Amino acid sequence: MNIKEIINEIHTKKEEGMKDIYLVACGGSLVDMYLSEYFLKSEAKRTRVSLYTSNEFVHAVPKALGSHSLVVVCSHGGNTKESVEAAKTAKEKGASTITLTHNETGALVEYGDYNILYKWGEETDVKDNPMAIIFAIAVEALHSIEGYHAYHKVIKGLEQINTVIAKARIQVAERARAFAKKYEHENMFYVLSSGASYGHAYGFSICSLMEMQWIHASAIHTGEYFHGPFEVTDKETPYILLMNEGRTRALDERALSFLKQYGEKLEVVDCKELGINTIDDEVVEFFNPIVFYSILSVYRAELAKIRQHPLETRRYMGKVAY
Amino acid sequence: MNIKEIINEIHTKKEEGMKDIYLVACGGSLVDMYLSEYFLKSEAKRTRVSLYTSNEFVHAVPKALGSHSLVVVCSHGGNTKESVEAAKTAKEKGASTITLTHNETGALVEYGDYNILYKWGEETDVKDNPMAIIFAIAVEALHSIEGYHAYHKVIKGLEQINTVIAKARIQVAERARAFAKKYEHENMFYVLSSGASYGHAYGFSICSLMEMQWIHASAIHTGEYFHGPFEVTDKETPYILLMNEGRTRALDERALSFLKQYGEKLEVVDCKELGINTIDDEVVEFFNPIVFYSILSVYRAELAKIRQHPLETRRYMGKVAY
Repeated sequence: MNIKEIINEIHTKKEEGMKDIYLVACGGSLVDMYLSEYFLKSEAKRTRVSLYTSNEFVHAVPKALGSHSLVVVCSHGGNTKESVEAAKTAKEKGASTITLTHNETGALVEYGDYNILYKWGEETDVKDNPMAIIFAIAVEALHSIEGYHAYHKVIKGLEQINTVIAKARIQVAERARAFAKKYEHENMFYVLSSGASYGHAYGFSICSLMEMQWIHASAIHTGEYFHGPFEVTDKETPYILLMNEGRTRALDERALSFLKQYGEKLEVVDCKELGINTIDDEVVEFFNPIVFYSILSVYRAELAKIRQHPLETRRYMGKVAY
Repeated sequence: MNIKEIINEIHTKKEEGMKDIYLVACGGSLVDMYLSEYFLKSEAKRTRVSLYTSNEFVHAVPKALGSHSLVVVCSHGGNTKESVEAAKTAKEKGASTITLTHNETGALVEYGDYNILYKWGEETDVKDNPMAIIFAIAVEALHSIEGYHAYHKVIKGLEQINTVIAKARIQVAERARAFAKKYEHENMFYVLSSGASYGHAYGFSICSLMEMQWIHASAIHTGEYFHGPFEVTDKETPYILLMNEGRTRALDERALSFLKQYGEKLEVVDCKELGINTIDDEVVEFFNPIVFYSILSVYRAELAKIRQHPLETRRYMGKVAY
């Protein structure tokens, strides 16, 4: 079954229809859901959306969770305990569940009314990776529940985005190497973005820098930057600014202008400059984080290489009890 | 008019009733809204809630914003440009607006259908401060729209919380001094919490540390900590753990146990130990961030004193153009 068929089947099965969508996961998988939360917060006229880290969803079960709910749970390895428990909780409350994993034997699969086994790796089309799949679920659900006027534009964008990224990866290859060389010895970064991509500023911080490189990091929304965080800005502190194309670009531009004046260590990754504008203006903003994920993977690979700290190295995860 | 009267008047005026609540502000004022977002996400059966930093709300106006919306906007000084613009946008879209400010001549007041002039300073009852007022608005709105079974317990808690805090402030006085002495020369902190208090982990990071002390900071949800961020944990990195009483305490306890084993620089502020349990078990979790705000103000005051960096010192805010 494809995503459209899954959503249609869920929707027609529910007497009252779907009323709320929960996006539940941990760490990197949760990062893949922020885009869809932003999309539904912005575009839905009556459908509710909530994003939860799995263990909070399990311990503080939302009162609205029930038969009119759709719960999407993602775990790359398929055995993240809190996420398996979250999918189980959702089913116990009578919600419909869609699980996503890269491991078809993972325990998570057992609790998915529908399970999507996704592809992974640089050679895959990004529309088959979890961020885009979850986005497609959100878009299909919204269209099915209340109609979504820009539905066809998003579907078209999902067909276009892989080409944008393939070109952009080549475009940044040299500058990613220069970035790694320049920042090799830094021990902390701020990562800034807004809108659909704020979750990816968070994701690059907690996954790529903290988890994979043991480098300190803090994600800041460019809209919030001027209301406290900018006071630490100086010429010694490194900033990575993820500039969106679309409605929230003005927020990112304001941060850019300030950082150019008062900072010095600034790396800008700009989706506009990277060719995202082949996608329709009305929906282009939703594709920024998909581009950022792939492009920043090039940056983090270079950082790992120059620092001789492979991306897979862990000291605690999967190694000690916790 | 008191909050109950305001909500009742708004609710009865709306033909279709209130359907969604937007919480909109910047920086410290936005921090004061996370509790209410968490509360409504958790307790509301059909009412939608969305939290927005003001400039994102203005640039990416949510499609659902309209005559069935209640928009709460807060700005301490009353003239935060993005927040004034947000309240204006809300009114233009036909939403009802409640504005909160400490400045009755602020531009924000003009765009509030109702304006609440709140009290400020250590000598005030915390229930008259913005975090508690916004929470009271959320509770009254929920009760008015769909009924809230624990309404009376929350109202009682709001009457009790100031006494809890007054005692807790005395209880932490000495340990706040010891904290400041121990961490005087640190230049970065992680601040961890969960549930209703995650927003305050963010708040202590961006306001108290970054803005007021120019110290680097990063807020991490204790549920997310084990899915990436914990890989930077070592005996050199300082952590402040805000432990909640209530449903998400298990998440905080798990982080505590790990940090005790693998970290060394750990400051724990625990609402349970600080006497929050005089409040009813069913609603106690919502009062944690109100306690944390007041208690951590004691910590930051000691830090400011020992570092000889007054809390009011700014290098950019209100001093340069941005």
